[in-house]
Amino acid sequence: MYREQIKVLDCTIRDGGLINNHYFTDEFVRAVYQALTKSGIDYMEFGYRSSKKLYPQAEYGPWKYCDDDKISEIIEGIESNIKISIMVDSYRVEEQEFRPADQSPIDMIRAATYVKYIDSAIELIHKCHDLGYETTCNIMAISKEIEPDLVEALDQLAKTPVDVVYVVDSFGALYCEQIEYLVKLYQEHLPGKTIGIHCHNQQQLAYANTIEGIIHNANYVDGSLFGIGRGPGNCCLELLVGFLKNPKFDLAPVLQVIEDYMIPMREEIEWGYIIPYAITGILNEHPRSAIALRKTDRKDKYAEFYEELSQSLD
Amino acid sequence: MYREQIKVLDCTIRDGGLINNHYFTDEFVRAVYQALTKSGIDYMEFGYRSSKKLYPQAEYGPWKYCDDDKISEIIEGIESNIKISIMVDSYRVEEQEFRPADQSPIDMIRAATYVKYIDSAIELIHKCHDLGYETTCNIMAISKEIEPDLVEALDQLAKTPVDVVYVVDSFGALYCEQIEYLVKLYQEHLPGKTIGIHCHNQQQLAYANTIEGIIHNANYVDGSLFGIGRGPGNCCLELLVGFLKNPKFDLAPVLQVIEDYMIPMREEIEWGYIIPYAITGILNEHPRSAIALRKTDRKDKYAEFYEELSQSLD
Repeated sequence: MYREQIKVLDCTIRDGGLINNHYFTDEFVRAVYQALTKSGIDYMEFGYRSSKKLYPQAEYGPWKYCDDDKISEIIEGIESNIKISIMVDSYRVEEQEFRPADQSPIDMIRAATYVKYIDSAIELIHKCHDLGYETTCNIMAISKEIEPDLVEALDQLAKTPVDVVYVVDSFGALYCEQIEYLVKLYQEHLPGKTIGIHCHNQQQLAYANTIEGIIHNANYVDGSLFGIGRGPGNCCLELLVGFLKNPKFDLAPVLQVIEDYMIPMREEIEWGYIIPYAITGILNEHPRSAIALRKTDRKDKYAEFYEELSQSLD
Repeated sequence: MYREQIKVLDCTIRDGGLINNHYFTDEFVRAVYQALTKSGIDYMEFGYRSSKKLYPQAEYGPWKYCDDDKISEIIEGIESNIKISIMVDSYRVEEQEFRPADQSPIDMIRAATYVKYIDSAIELIHKCHDLGYETTCNIMAISKEIEPDLVEALDQLAKTPVDVVYVVDSFGALYCEQIEYLVKLYQEHLPGKTIGIHCHNQQQLAYANTIEGIIHNANYVDGSLFGIGRGPGNCCLELLVGFLKNPKFDLAPVLQVIEDYMIPMREEIEWGYIIPYAITGILNEHPRSAIALRKTDRKDKYAEFYEELSQSLD
């Protein structure tokens, strides 16, 4: 699939950080930056810009905050054209300050929100756009929203300077026909905006749904190394690069960094195809119940978990 | 997705047998039979009917041969409406004998072949049909065939009494648009026949491609428990049942047998998302090079393997 407008964003450090409280070593983050640079990936997302008042620094690693100076320290001395993004939960903004874009290593700020907090995302988008950043809006959990509410949010976003609006399948619950429907709905209500797609892998559909998005002209696509991310994780970057076949991408450095870092890391922290997450995906539920289950000695009691969760939804 | 004509076939014992030389315990095969029965699955495939001259019994377990009496021994005393299928490599048939269907526990015989051996499949289909069996033809490795050859095979099959012809993605190399194309091609050339779909999971697309097949009216769909199968394995039966949502299916017994047997088994034998198989899928190659790699101490040398395999194809 060759289309010049397609931009690939790697969210390894950001989405992966959700399973280790954003404690990645500088060595690893630097290795990922180098590998993605060599592979020709368009964006690397370093993490969140979170409020230190709301999230005390004693409890989180540096990629919960993504200070400009910390990012600059990691990338220093590495020649690279890759752009850098961070994510901000727009509804949990307190004292965050953003430097003007030309004084920051960051190129793009992604506003994550739920439909009900869309006003906070719009405010953040205006602020960041005015500072010179590229901006996106990632509306989460849309598989649980009723359409008029979602459409109202999209219509409001259409009037902002936001560059990209993402279809986000937070619960890994959407099937390909629903992805097609949503990408087209976003296009209809966001004339002139770029559509992105960010999928989760509860049902092994993250990569397939990302392809489905691409087929229907979503041009910003997210992946992570070996699919790392909370629970089932994300679309695998290595598969996405294999699919795109654009000569600007090189798969080998992606494979090398997976071999060097992700396989050992997968021995330490859990992500991937795990039945309780498949169950929450099938039931279109937030993964929190599966996350809780996996911390108990009932972690592999799949049938019981399915019956309990199903009954709790009746 | 509710459509009465959809039939689900579980190939756990047959495709899973490819990674353990068909040595499953009677207890396990019986547990699978009971679970699939309770779950309302339509067919259970027990294994291959292979020639004992070509494949000596000292080297393989019972599901390489699927003797009628062995199957009868397993299912004895279990009340069940599930139908039983076996697979036959039609191009490696020597002395196999088939009882008349009404004297056998087997309901359906699936002829596996390559395009070049289609004549052998047709001969087998006639023979089995005349004995009273339901029959299918599973043409393998079609992602490497040129279309006129494939079409000629389909046109020949159209003249036989075969009930179902499967689109088989042996190399896990096909993307959803190619699945759509092939399902439609099969329908065009096989008027009145049922189309089936059997996918492999090299690129995490087996389930998504199975859904794609269903959307385009493939009505026989294959899955296996926890996706067990050679290398990356197959479409996960548990996901498929979750998608179909037909009240005749019950997910809980499937989850129970996965919990009881598949998780411990996965500690003993390897299958699932493994990068060298993803690479053979991306490159549309037989998994044999990845299988060989995984037996060496270079099993996680992904970047080298990718470079070597790519170069060998130039």
